[in-house]
Formats: sequence, structure tokens, C-alpha cells
Amino acid sequence: MGETTALIGLDWGTSSLRAYRLAATGGVLERRRADLGILGIAGGAFEDALSAFLGDWLRAGPAVPLLASGMITSRQGWVETPYLPCPVTVEALAAALVERRLRSGHRILFVCGLSTRGTDGVPDVMRGEETQIAGALAEGVSARLLVLPGTHSKWVRCAEGRIVDFATMMTGELYELLRRHSILGRLMREGEEDGEAFARGVARGMADDPASGGLLHRLFGVRSLGLLGEVPPPGLASYLSGLLLGSELREAALLFGTREVPGLIGEPGLVERYRAACAGVGRPCRVLPPDLAARGLFELARRSGILDSP
Amino acid sequence: MGETTALIGLDWGTSSLRAYRLAATGGVLERRRADLGILGIAGGAFEDALSAFLGDWLRAGPAVPLLASGMITSRQGWVETPYLPCPVTVEALAAALVERRLRSGHRILFVCGLSTRGTDGVPDVMRGEETQIAGALAEGVSARLLVLPGTHSKWVRCAEGRIVDFATMMTGELYELLRRHSILGRLMREGEEDGEAFARGVARGMADDPASGGLLHRLFGVRSLGLLGEVPPPGLASYLSGLLLGSELREAALLFGTREVPGLIGEPGLVERYRAACAGVGRPCRVLPPDLAARGLFELARRSGILDSP
Repeated sequence: MGETTALIGLDWGTSSLRAYRLAATGGVLERRRADLGILGIAGGAFEDALSAFLGDWLRAGPAVPLLASGMITSRQGWVETPYLPCPVTVEALAAALVERRLRSGHRILFVCGLSTRGTDGVPDVMRGEETQIAGALAEGVSARLLVLPGTHSKWVRCAEGRIVDFATMMTGELYELLRRHSILGRLMREGEEDGEAFARGVARGMADDPASGGLLHRLFGVRSLGLLGEVPPPGLASYLSGLLLGSELREAALLFGTREVPGLIGEPGLVERYRAACAGVGRPCRVLPPDLAARGLFELARRSGILDSP
Repeated sequence: MGETTALIGLDWGTSSLRAYRLAATGGVLERRRADLGILGIAGGAFEDALSAFLGDWLRAGPAVPLLASGMITSRQGWVETPYLPCPVTVEALAAALVERRLRSGHRILFVCGLSTRGTDGVPDVMRGEETQIAGALAEGVSARLLVLPGTHSKWVRCAEGRIVDFATMMTGELYELLRRHSILGRLMREGEEDGEAFARGVARGMADDPASGGLLHRLFGVRSLGLLGEVPPPGLASYLSGLLLGSELREAALLFGTREVPGLIGEPGLVERYRAACAGVGRPCRVLPPDLAARGLFELARRSGILDSP
């Protein structure tokens, strides 16, 4: 198995499990991915699933600790960890790991989620993204605004190595819902992505004039434009996608200010699409290095001391 | 069958057909309702469905004209009528009826839809509501802002007997989608309506401070509040309903100004709920008389001259 394993890192989400075998330097020695998301594991048999998936790694390193983050730490997961209130330092995250033992004797630790409150006192939460952010901070990323696009996009403000606060946007999930289940989806036809329709959608989503309506009204415009033939049916999905992205950018600008150039974190394909879309409407973003989940897991393990005392 | 029938009015929508037997005075002599919405009628057999449902009315009045409005005039309906661009007078709507003949020899006419454009040039459309509005204008309703709440709420500005412009909000459909299909619905539990949670939702939806986020962010708050136990699970559906209603009221205020007391049109149960909710947050509305669809159908028929020349 080559170089000695110092840590097994687990990025364990709703639909998939990503595992990293990490060296004492933090380097990724080996990686695996499986459709072992927490919603697909019956009866809470997480330890059995893990033993089957990584049995060889565990046998080869009887004293190697494991560190897990993501939805595996939620109420529907293996061990429910608390939400640490922002602002939070990486040290505080590392100090709050929740420890269990596997039947094999291995130590397994779980990362906490984060919570914050908006200016109006309403809470927001994350689970899993905090580990990627810890990875970015460990990489010395200078961006003070990070974006993790996706089903529930996270916009995260950082300063001096701390996670200051954040806001979640339901962009991705709303797109899927509206395309699959709403009256808007009925007019849509499969087709190539339509760049022009996408750009028109983004422009309308970003438009600040409240006299032209908010999101509840603008969404219905997808139907009107389709019915009147002003956006062709194969372009309607692109238009809707653009409208939601534009709305996200506008909301984020009002939440966090417009001057920052955000750093993008996520799957390379997704963040590149997101970057290109934002660049196309004059909102530059910077794509951060991949594998920040592995980097964050290592950093939290290192700071917690579990790498020193097996 | 009693008093002579002057007109058979049809309010024929996606999920139901409402029929009115109307006297020469416009009074409703008889009414019927059936689950004969256009989406439930296979193969476009609209005339067969109508003959089966109203055969006795048709036989008793071989010279009585029929007038239909609603989704029956859409591409998925019986006869697709055009959209008349706003501003539109009731006279113009009456002059634009589209005529066909039934196999029985009866004249049947179809009302046109309406279209408008926002300040940003994006179109909006309605079908069916224009008839209710024509009914309201015929009743001499003085409200200059009318609201037809529902799956796709319509906010309509009127002046001097004309329909000036309007805006559709996807409020009702978004509520159903999010409750049934989204991650927000997963935390919800059936329960009594929770008035306090509803009011909190309305307040957040109406809040103007953009630094507390827009709708994409506020929607995710339904999940955060549930996860942290700050809104109990049986109250989450009420909170979401309130959040969307509050957002609709805020968007409408920015679109149409806040000074108007809107007139509410729709099913008595629905408009009463809507009125009470708006009153609870200091936005008084006035409930308009019921049966405005029948009133509008009669008014359009009268002005078109079809009542005089069978």
C-alpha cells in the first residue's frame, strides 16, 4: 500500500461517500468514491458500510484514526454533532471533534456543523462545507468571500483565519423543482444549453429595479416568455437557470457587498460552469484548488492532536 | 326549467368546469360544477363532455348562445384564442370573442386572454381572470387594484373601466412544490395551522432589509429554523406559507405602490383566508362579491350583441 497512512478522511454526504487515505504530510495517497450516501444506507448500518468499503485500509493501519464530516454528522447520519455558532476559528472546530470507536478498535471522529444568524436573527446552518473552508484557510486562500455552489449554495465570509458568517441560497434545489415538477417545466424541451437565453435570464435575475418585480413574479415570466415564443422551448431551462443564478448573485451582493472577488469551492466541473457564468455577467470569481475537503480533514485532524497520539 | 335562459356561461379551467344558466337580467338561474377540467378530458373531446354535462340545458334552449373562458381557450384547450395586449377595455374584450358552432347548432364563443409587459419588457399573461375582472368592472367596483389569489396569483391594475396592466406571482405553486417535493417538506409534520409561525413567516417575507437576504436565502431559513427547533415541525408549513405570502405582498407593493386597498376576487374560502392574513399584517383588502365569473361572462355576452341576435 506504499507510504504509511496517517489519517483516513471521510467526506460523507447525502448521496455519496468520498474517502481519502492521507500521508503524514497531508498528501492524498489514495482516494475512493462510492454511492454510499447516508440516505441509501438502510437501518443506520454505517459502520458495516464503512468496513466493507475500506476494509483493506483499516486492516493495513490498525492504529490509523478516521475523521468524518458532512451529512453523516446530521440527525439522519451516524453521530449527530452540534452546530458551533459563528464566528468560528479552525482551532475551535478542531477542538470540538466528537469521538467514537469502531468495533475494530479504530478511533473515528466527527466534525461539527456551523450555525450563524442573519441581521434579522434568523439562523442558518451548514454541515460539511466547514471542512472545505478549513481546507481553504489552511491553503492560505486570501479571498474573504467563499462560494460553494450547489443544491444549497453557501456564501461564506472569512477574516483573519476565522469563518465570520454565511448565507445559504436554495438556488440549485429550486431549479430542479421548477424544471421537474412545476408548470414552467411543462413548456421546456430537452436541448443544447442556450447561452443567449441563459444570459437573458441572468440579466433579469440581477436587475435591481423593484418595479419590475421580485422572484415570485419573475419566475412566472419563464412561462409567459415561453407561451409567447419569446424564448424558444429548448432555451427555457437555460433561461430559468440564468434567472436563478442572477437572483443568487443579486441577493449575495446585498448580503455581503459587491466589491469582493469570491473564491469558488466545489467539484471542478460545477465551479467552472459557475465561474464562466459569473464572468459572463461581469462578476469575476476565482476557482480555488480542488480537494479542499481532504485538506480540511487533514488540517482539523492535525490541529486536534489525533495524528500524534494514536 | 323556470325563467328563460339567455346565456349559458362556462368558466372552464384546468381542473374543473363551472356552468351558469343566466337570465336576460344577468341573474344566475342555475349553476353546476364538475371535475371536467381540460387536463382530464382525453383526446380533446370537449364538445362530447359538454353535451353530456349540459344536455338538458341545451335541449331546452336550442337558440341559447354559450360563452366560455379559462384554460379551455388555451393551446391545450378547445379553441386557442389570442392574448389581447393591455390596456384593454371590456368593450374590446367583448368585440374579440371567437365564435364556433356546436353540432347541435348552438353558437359557442370563447373569450380572449390578456397580455401585458413589465417595465423591463418581459411579458405576462392571463386566461380566465380577465372575465372575472370584467365582472368586477361591470359591478362598478371602485378598487383600482384587484388581487386574484391562487396557484398563480394575479395582481391587476384598473382605471376608468380599463384593465391597465397586471403581474402574476407564483406563490401558490411554489408553496405546493416546496412542501411536497423539497428538503423543506421533509421536516414538516401535519398539524393544525400555526398562527404564530404564519405571522413570523409573513413578517420575514415582508421585511425590506436586503442585508437580511432575498427569497432564495429566506426559503432556506425554513430549514434552519426547523433544525434548530425555533419553529416546531407542525408550524413549518404555516411559516413557509406566511413567508411566501409576505414576499408576494412586498413584491406587489414595489410593483404597484402601497397606498391602494386591493379588491379580492376568488373562491369565498380562499379570499377570506387571504384577507384575514393580510389584515393581520396591516394590509387591509376588500372582498368583492362572489360569482364575478358569471357576471363577467354575462357582461361580455351582452356587450358583444350575441344576446340580441340568436
